[in-house]
Amino acid sequence: MGSVDTRAAPTAADIDAAAARLAGVAVRTPLINAPVLDERLSARVFLKAETLQRTGSFKFRGAYNKISRIPPAQRAAGVVAYSSGNHAQGVAAAARLLGIRATIVMPADAPRSKRARTEALGAEVVTYDRDREDRAAIAERIVRERGATLVPPYDDPLIIAGQGTIGREIVEDLAQRGLAPDIVVIGASGGGLAAGISLGVKARVPSARFYTVEPEGFDDTARSFRSGRREHNDRLSGSICDALLSNSPGELTFPITRQLIGQGLVASDAEVGRAVRYAFEELKLVVEPGGAIGLAALLAGRLDVSGKVVVGVLSGGNVDADLFARLVTSGDGAPRPA
Amino acid sequence: MGSVDTRAAPTAADIDAAAARLAGVAVRTPLINAPVLDERLSARVFLKAETLQRTGSFKFRGAYNKISRIPPAQRAAGVVAYSSGNHAQGVAAAARLLGIRATIVMPADAPRSKRARTEALGAEVVTYDRDREDRAAIAERIVRERGATLVPPYDDPLIIAGQGTIGREIVEDLAQRGLAPDIVVIGASGGGLAAGISLGVKARVPSARFYTVEPEGFDDTARSFRSGRREHNDRLSGSICDALLSNSPGELTFPITRQLIGQGLVASDAEVGRAVRYAFEELKLVVEPGGAIGLAALLAGRLDVSGKVVVGVLSGGNVDADLFARLVTSGDGAPRPA
Repeated sequence: MGSVDTRAAPTAADIDAAAARLAGVAVRTPLINAPVLDERLSARVFLKAETLQRTGSFKFRGAYNKISRIPPAQRAAGVVAYSSGNHAQGVAAAARLLGIRATIVMPADAPRSKRARTEALGAEVVTYDRDREDRAAIAERIVRERGATLVPPYDDPLIIAGQGTIGREIVEDLAQRGLAPDIVVIGASGGGLAAGISLGVKARVPSARFYTVEPEGFDDTARSFRSGRREHNDRLSGSICDALLSNSPGELTFPITRQLIGQGLVASDAEVGRAVRYAFEELKLVVEPGGAIGLAALLAGRLDVSGKVVVGVLSGGNVDADLFARLVTSGDGAPRPA
Repeated sequence: MGSVDTRAAPTAADIDAAAARLAGVAVRTPLINAPVLDERLSARVFLKAETLQRTGSFKFRGAYNKISRIPPAQRAAGVVAYSSGNHAQGVAAAARLLGIRATIVMPADAPRSKRARTEALGAEVVTYDRDREDRAAIAERIVRERGATLVPPYDDPLIIAGQGTIGREIVEDLAQRGLAPDIVVIGASGGGLAAGISLGVKARVPSARFYTVEPEGFDDTARSFRSGRREHNDRLSGSICDALLSNSPGELTFPITRQLIGQGLVASDAEVGRAVRYAFEELKLVVEPGGAIGLAALLAGRLDVSGKVVVGVLSGGNVDADLFARLVTSGDGAPRPA
């Protein structure tokens, strides 16, 4: 099968191939319509509930697609990944299903639930200081020392193609109802999810428009769309959206999202907190802050979606019980973390 | 169209008729498979997420099916219902969609969220004291005074047939995966949900077996199955499962559930609390205590489901944020309410 060119942009055909690999392994997550949200936004709103995916986020898709393509001779050396949490669990679960050892490099301040769940999936966790150490360098050292295969969080054609299966499913499930997406709203960090979904949808519905959404103060993608080059954030922590704190759009993802998406929104922590609470009260779904940011932008009225078929991606649901309890019982959105 | 015989047992054909009325109005809720639950129970486990139904519980189905059959001449007088909460919201939402005024007789100690949501749906709420007043008598007085139509919580063939559409969908959605249900686990109070689902499933899959689940100390249905006559509970309050505190199985529902189900399980408040927490942590679903009792029985190992296709019905998700926060952050299940 040979080595995969990790610099080549993925295509719609790569997404179809990923869908075939994931069939019967990944959960085909429901595309949920909530009449209460339709009424509120005067639109047909659908939520792609990747919260219900294996490991509670979309990350399993890309990880499984990537790891399942590792040549047999390289499997014994294991895989390594760096992640603030969801990618870690996705890699751990995919590796376990494929009988491959996984090592995860994780910030020491990652949510407890994410670390515990990663270890429960059989992975070894190596921690680092988010402000002083370089997670990529740590992971690369493990690759050198052990011959392990790096599973990047987003900048890899197999990862992007795996996430792209979500776009394919969105189009298929809307078509079953006689609909096609007008607007798709996607949380963005490194851009793997946004690149994959926009590729997967655009191949089938060229008229669809997309928006990324990022935490206020961490809007590297939106600024990159405006400047035309990969901008960076000033900080790497300080938002409740712990899953969305990558430093800049990816080298491989940005050309895709720039061409297919090109417009980015932001939402504040308070707006995200209100979206988490809305999802609890009205939708009965557990969504983590980073996973609710697309919904937050919709609820905050960032877009005029009136009369449109709108899809929001709920990308993950791994939130510590204490934070979730605070968000759903507080009257006015999310307090900032200490 | 004439008056409906409210004493005649519903049939599978009544469920098909209800499904036609509900098409495009009720949410076709997803049948969710969670690999993590499959692993834990060594079974193929599917959860029918009626938490995602309009108003956050299955009750909308029966209410809409019933109210949509009220003859035009009687509609102006409105509808009245008595309910601890979920039926109230179902009736309010169905009445509003059909342009009919709704009055709800509700216990004064019903969860805040349920009362607020009923009023937000445009219904008038009349409260009563759960320990000293008879809700049925209050509702009947409103029927006499206004000429309103009573929408009973369970003892009505149209209500049962509406809930039965859940059984129909379970069978259809499993068939799409090449499966059929071996075991269906259903929370029971008055028995409308259990009667409807067992009718809807049994008509298509005669080999399916069913279990009701009730809160410990409120097991009137299980005791009735054993004695062959409608037994009563000693108390009307004192479980966190506020949706499951009817006094006895229904006159119309019991002959159905006795024939088609015949076996009842119980779960403790602590087990229910753990199920609510499990649904939060592992499934990313918000389930109210009464809605989680089937899952609680499965997680507590009440049944040997090994190797079987098992369906648990998550019947509702309307839980106050404070109680939910307590349940998901507490280590060892549910404290009893004050």
